Amino acid sequence: MNTPGKPAHAPMKHFHSADGELLIGGIPLRRLAARVGSTPFYAYDRGLLDDRVRTLRAALPPEVRLHYAMKANPMPALVGHMAGRVDGIDVASGGELKVALDAGTDPAEISFAGPGKRAAELEQAVAAGVLVNVESFRELPLLAAAAERLGLPARVAVRVNPDFELKSSGMKMGGGPKQFGVDAEQVPALLAEIAAAGLAFEGFHLFAGSQNLRAEAIVEAQQKSFELALRLAAQAPAPVRVLNLGGGFGIPYFPGEERLDLAPIGANLQQLVERAAGELPQAALTIELGRYLVGEAGVYVCRVLDRKVSRGRTYLVTDGGLHHHLAASGNFGQVIRKNYPAAVGTRMDAAPGEDASVVGPLCTPLDLLAEQMPLGHAQEDDLLVIFQSGAYGASASPERFLGHPAVVEVLV
Amino acid sequence: MNTPGKPAHAPMKHFHSADGELLIGGIPLRRLAARVGSTPFYAYDRGLLDDRVRTLRAALPPEVRLHYAMKANPMPALVGHMAGRVDGIDVASGGELKVALDAGTDPAEISFAGPGKRAAELEQAVAAGVLVNVESFRELPLLAAAAERLGLPARVAVRVNPDFELKSSGMKMGGGPKQFGVDAEQVPALLAEIAAAGLAFEGFHLFAGSQNLRAEAIVEAQQKSFELALRLAAQAPAPVRVLNLGGGFGIPYFPGEERLDLAPIGANLQQLVERAAGELPQAALTIELGRYLVGEAGVYVCRVLDRKVSRGRTYLVTDGGLHHHLAASGNFGQVIRKNYPAAVGTRMDAAPGEDASVVGPLCTPLDLLAEQMPLGHAQEDDLLVIFQSGAYGASASPERFLGHPAVVEVLV
Repeated sequence: MNTPGKPAHAPMKHFHSADGELLIGGIPLRRLAARVGSTPFYAYDRGLLDDRVRTLRAALPPEVRLHYAMKANPMPALVGHMAGRVDGIDVASGGELKVALDAGTDPAEISFAGPGKRAAELEQAVAAGVLVNVESFRELPLLAAAAERLGLPARVAVRVNPDFELKSSGMKMGGGPKQFGVDAEQVPALLAEIAAAGLAFEGFHLFAGSQNLRAEAIVEAQQKSFELALRLAAQAPAPVRVLNLGGGFGIPYFPGEERLDLAPIGANLQQLVERAAGELPQAALTIELGRYLVGEAGVYVCRVLDRKVSRGRTYLVTDGGLHHHLAASGNFGQVIRKNYPAAVGTRMDAAPGEDASVVGPLCTPLDLLAEQMPLGHAQEDDLLVIFQSGAYGASASPERFLGHPAVVEVLV
Repeated sequence: MNTPGKPAHAPMKHFHSADGELLIGGIPLRRLAARVGSTPFYAYDRGLLDDRVRTLRAALPPEVRLHYAMKANPMPALVGHMAGRVDGIDVASGGELKVALDAGTDPAEISFAGPGKRAAELEQAVAAGVLVNVESFRELPLLAAAAERLGLPARVAVRVNPDFELKSSGMKMGGGPKQFGVDAEQVPALLAEIAAAGLAFEGFHLFAGSQNLRAEAIVEAQQKSFELALRLAAQAPAPVRVLNLGGGFGIPYFPGEERLDLAPIGANLQQLVERAAGELPQAALTIELGRYLVGEAGVYVCRVLDRKVSRGRTYLVTDGGLHHHLAASGNFGQVIRKNYPAAVGTRMDAAPGEDASVVGPLCTPLDLLAEQMPLGHAQEDDLLVIFQSGAYGASASPERFLGHPAVVEVLV
């Protein structure tokens, strides 16, 4: 498939097409665009969201609890959809907490992480009755004071900055010095302060990294996380009931990347479930996934405004761009810009007949959605689709930049 | 000043301090924060905006018209302030056009550029009576139809993609294949179509690049732009009345960068003004600046929530971050992340006593405002200031990311 020197994108077979048009939630793309009423838009496919949850449930032991990290996509309708299918929601701010509660999530199944929680957010969390993943000694007196004021328990888990990292991750979030969590070696002192402050200790949260496509790296991090939690549990003021092993499951974005193999991760988690039954008998193992749950279910759709040839190079100028999809423009953590998978969604049967660059309406060369990519021969009014856009899309983009209309999001 | 191997930031002497506190518009920082009512916020200093316009007017020939490219900062109050001080406003969308008109700008002095203008935006431009910088053959029939429907002239200039580039620019926006403008070699054909369509031709727009700190590169680009415009003018259907030579004037962001020397640019423009008097007698030369006018007048202010030491490294965890200031996090066009100039605005008299990293509340390692930077020893509740933040800040950041409150902007 991937000829040397010219790696290809992983196939986007989870989307089908009919009569040359991409189908989203079974709806042909032009009809969907007409239903939305304007371009550009993000569309998320309910069926694909459900498929992904089903696939995960089948691959992982039934005892493992599946959480949705809504930072990946906080669209309220999507969070509501996911809330009915996963075992809990992880939020990263008071704003996200509101959305999770509005979605009908049981507060008992919401956890709140973040390295810089404001005092008001900690009070919101106690008032809501959600689990706070403590990331600093500073949070303890604030939580104790909020619990006192509100006459409610402050439920806490400890987010640990482990003494190892998740190898080959897109983003490393543990190991070495970090702003996230409390260094493993400081956790015993933190646990003593939690006990002294009268907070309700429930467990540990370890999140070593994200966007990893190598199952063996995830397996290794989960094993090390489990061992570390076991060691720390010995000093905890109460039994561990929640052991959140983080996520890190990646999806293929760029040429040459292949989908994650869940089988070894499921087998490893089965072993950990069995060990936990003996060594941490009250603990529920939790996996927290954002991008992996929703990323592949979404597309970004924009309209070709102009087909322009400049000095031999073809530009498809669209009404969409980095103001809606910063990550696809290469400006969100990538060091070297690479193309997301893309297609002319209104010419799915056309062979990739030309190399074209897809650009947006902004007056900056950064506004580039695809660079010299093989695409079907697109004309004005064709709809251009960027795949793998269900996570870190609309909410992670500078929507106000240059004063263009806000992007619409639909759940189909 | 800049010892080899350890370059320093350009001094931020345009801001003063008193009693250890940074002053913005003469107001001590803590008082300003109290007046704003919340952190984080952006503050733009009216006096510094005026100083910059004054400096430019003194350095450039009086015949050169000074335009503000509002993409750099579209805050309505700031645009209103600038509208009274410059000779025109350049907009990049229908949304920006509305702000420029609301600010009281004479439509005759507004120009509209952008590689992907929607049909509705072109109609807005004709209805408003502003100058459209045409960037594609596609725009001509749309403009002609709008002019016909509205019974108004369609005022146009031609944005040229030159056959040279602005050397050592932060962003190249001309030369080679580009989505911007019409390739110089295609302009004669475009001019013929403009005449045939009955559009009101007024001149040329050339914008070779931006964020340039080398005066000689800007001088060279302006000379080449002038020569190219002269050649093209010979085939224009009407005399050139507007010759927009673009901008490209940079400001120092990173260690080792020094401020642009305006003197050679002024001298060169004086020569061009004299040549224009003979060779393009009806043409007004225009310089279009965004970042250079407003970038140095603004700061981003956030509050230290936590002072955290992880494995020997100090983190100042603040309530501000990349969701408000993407560029300072290094995720907006930079290949290698570098620190913006920063200071503890409530401890301006303190010597840089430690290296600290300034991070935000987001659950991502990208949320980094300063990395291992020498700073005064900050504590919780101190106010951290990122300088050079008046351009491409609030509007160019993913404000909704992770559901934190929107940033406030004040003009002081």
